[in-house]
Amino acid sequence: MTDFESNLALLRQDIDEIDSQLVELLAKRLAVTTKVGQLKSRYGVPIFAPEREAKLLAKRREQAAVSGVSPQLVEDILRRMMRDSYLSQDLSGYQCVNPQCNKVVVIGGAGQLGRVFVDLFKRSNYCVEVLEQGDWQNSDIIFAQASLVIVAVPIRHTIDVIKKLTKLPSDCILADITSVKSSPLKAMLNVHKGPVVGLHPMFGPDITGLLKQTIITCDGRGAEKYHWLLAQFRVWGAKIYPVQASDHDSAMSMVQVMRHFSTIAYGSHLMNESVDLSQLVDMSSPIYRLELMMVGRLFAQNPVLYTDIIFANDDNLAMMKRFAHNFLDLLTQVEQGDKQGFIEKFEQVSKWFGSYAEIFLKESQALLQKTNEM
Amino acid sequence: MTDFESNLALLRQDIDEIDSQLVELLAKRLAVTTKVGQLKSRYGVPIFAPEREAKLLAKRREQAAVSGVSPQLVEDILRRMMRDSYLSQDLSGYQCVNPQCNKVVVIGGAGQLGRVFVDLFKRSNYCVEVLEQGDWQNSDIIFAQASLVIVAVPIRHTIDVIKKLTKLPSDCILADITSVKSSPLKAMLNVHKGPVVGLHPMFGPDITGLLKQTIITCDGRGAEKYHWLLAQFRVWGAKIYPVQASDHDSAMSMVQVMRHFSTIAYGSHLMNESVDLSQLVDMSSPIYRLELMMVGRLFAQNPVLYTDIIFANDDNLAMMKRFAHNFLDLLTQVEQGDKQGFIEKFEQVSKWFGSYAEIFLKESQALLQKTNEM
Repeated sequence: MTDFESNLALLRQDIDEIDSQLVELLAKRLAVTTKVGQLKSRYGVPIFAPEREAKLLAKRREQAAVSGVSPQLVEDILRRMMRDSYLSQDLSGYQCVNPQCNKVVVIGGAGQLGRVFVDLFKRSNYCVEVLEQGDWQNSDIIFAQASLVIVAVPIRHTIDVIKKLTKLPSDCILADITSVKSSPLKAMLNVHKGPVVGLHPMFGPDITGLLKQTIITCDGRGAEKYHWLLAQFRVWGAKIYPVQASDHDSAMSMVQVMRHFSTIAYGSHLMNESVDLSQLVDMSSPIYRLELMMVGRLFAQNPVLYTDIIFANDDNLAMMKRFAHNFLDLLTQVEQGDKQGFIEKFEQVSKWFGSYAEIFLKESQALLQKTNEM
Repeated sequence: MTDFESNLALLRQDIDEIDSQLVELLAKRLAVTTKVGQLKSRYGVPIFAPEREAKLLAKRREQAAVSGVSPQLVEDILRRMMRDSYLSQDLSGYQCVNPQCNKVVVIGGAGQLGRVFVDLFKRSNYCVEVLEQGDWQNSDIIFAQASLVIVAVPIRHTIDVIKKLTKLPSDCILADITSVKSSPLKAMLNVHKGPVVGLHPMFGPDITGLLKQTIITCDGRGAEKYHWLLAQFRVWGAKIYPVQASDHDSAMSMVQVMRHFSTIAYGSHLMNESVDLSQLVDMSSPIYRLELMMVGRLFAQNPVLYTDIIFANDDNLAMMKRFAHNFLDLLTQVEQGDKQGFIEKFEQVSKWFGSYAEIFLKESQALLQKTNEM
């Protein structure tokens, strides 16, 4: 062994020793946070404590700065640890906000997103029943004792299913989790005279917990009667965002319909242009890889869901036509070599984005470093 | 204090104690990795050692599994630590691959990306001179001793600057770092009879090191003479990706021109539609926030660079028109209510993406968890 090799080997031994202590420390921390979870669950206290989190981070950042370690490094590691720690605390179960609740019925509760809610209600000690397609002949019995009915069927069946719900107990809460809100809300208010609330969980079925996830709520009627349900969502860690159904639908047409559709169009354009995808990936910088990732990820998913969302609303069609014509107008500027006009348009949009542009740039830089680590 | 409060306070003390030990451990690790950096720098060994990294991760994952800690948690933390450790090792300086090199001249070396290279060459003990606009009257003297000239001016000046380089020493290497490659390469081969290579660094000026970053190379002539330059890039941690200039340009029109342009179009569409941006952000799920981030981040940057890239090539125009018409064709399917046809198109594209779709979905899920932590 050369001098270099033997010196390097010694230093690497030191690193291994330190890393081994790190794993031991993580095991110790997990044992303590599990106890915190059990304690909180026993007393019905939410897992997520933003103030404690902020204090904990501030203290360690300070210690890091004094020890000559990067405070950002320490914060990133602590946040990563807390993510797992919240998960392990969740396993201790959740407080049941409304022990008077007779029964929760989830229609379509065997579906991907429905299952998430069934699981959470069960872990909070609610009595939960799932109603699937084959169970409708027994629906009268199933609904008779229901305190809460959640419609969690695919978007194309939502309205038809709601129309069948004519015999719910008058104090039963009726809710749906469809990704459009105006039409289901209207249908629910028509069919049922009791409390009604539209929900849009802003997450996919692959989440591991509701912590810091958003649930959009659109009030139908009887807010004081479904109040406990929102409190239960908060116990699970979710943020509640109340909004008018029509505002929800127009915002969603921009972030959901428009992005899905243009992503599908871009993917099919790459195919039409006979792009060499593996070469493209190899040549991509982290930011282009991220762009490609955001496109390609869609095509690993179920087309039916996306198609249903895109075809759900005629207003979307007109809005997307406006996009295509705006795109062609901008292209005309390029064709005419009007660089100055193009720059002015860009600056106008920058101004419109305001401080968000800078915030998004910073966030994306942090994300890019993550991509680079992977 | 209630029982709950006192119990919680005790457990939180335990957590603080563990986290404090963690910071101490990080400080110890930093001291050791700094020594590794110094050692490697002294012997001219690259910082990045993929095999060692893989072994280190495997050992700790194994230990984690035995200790009941999530191996993924341990791997994520170690990767985050290694990112900083590579940075600190870089500070020890780099080996100089070609001590015979007289002088490196970077034209536009005071610009954002030029500065990155100036800095790296200096930290590798090369003699570096920057030539800016005001220095052309002395250019004969500046170039007389040059072993390597790198053109790092904004894309719209690249060709004009290259045309001035008629008096380089015959064995001097001429290179550029423009984001298009065919036309600069042609111009360089015309003006200079010595070794020529086109470079496209696939990263922005905000990177903190070249580790795992890609530099695309397009051979002009005299590969055996500029070989040391690529070796130097590798010492800095970069990956070299050699490709034909024309292949480079057509791939870049897809990942760069097309993405930039459609992002600008989408941003201006959001503005045209008078979207309430802050409401949109509040309502966004992690994936939509990521989408918005990828759009908004562009508008925090310099419009001139993007405009130059978009206007650089007429072929781009035709390609983007094809995109717009493909977009409108797909919209016609929606207008006609042809769900089945739309699903078939989607599935065709999925098939074309092949295994990349699944890979991208997995990567994006890891990224989404990161967004959620932030």
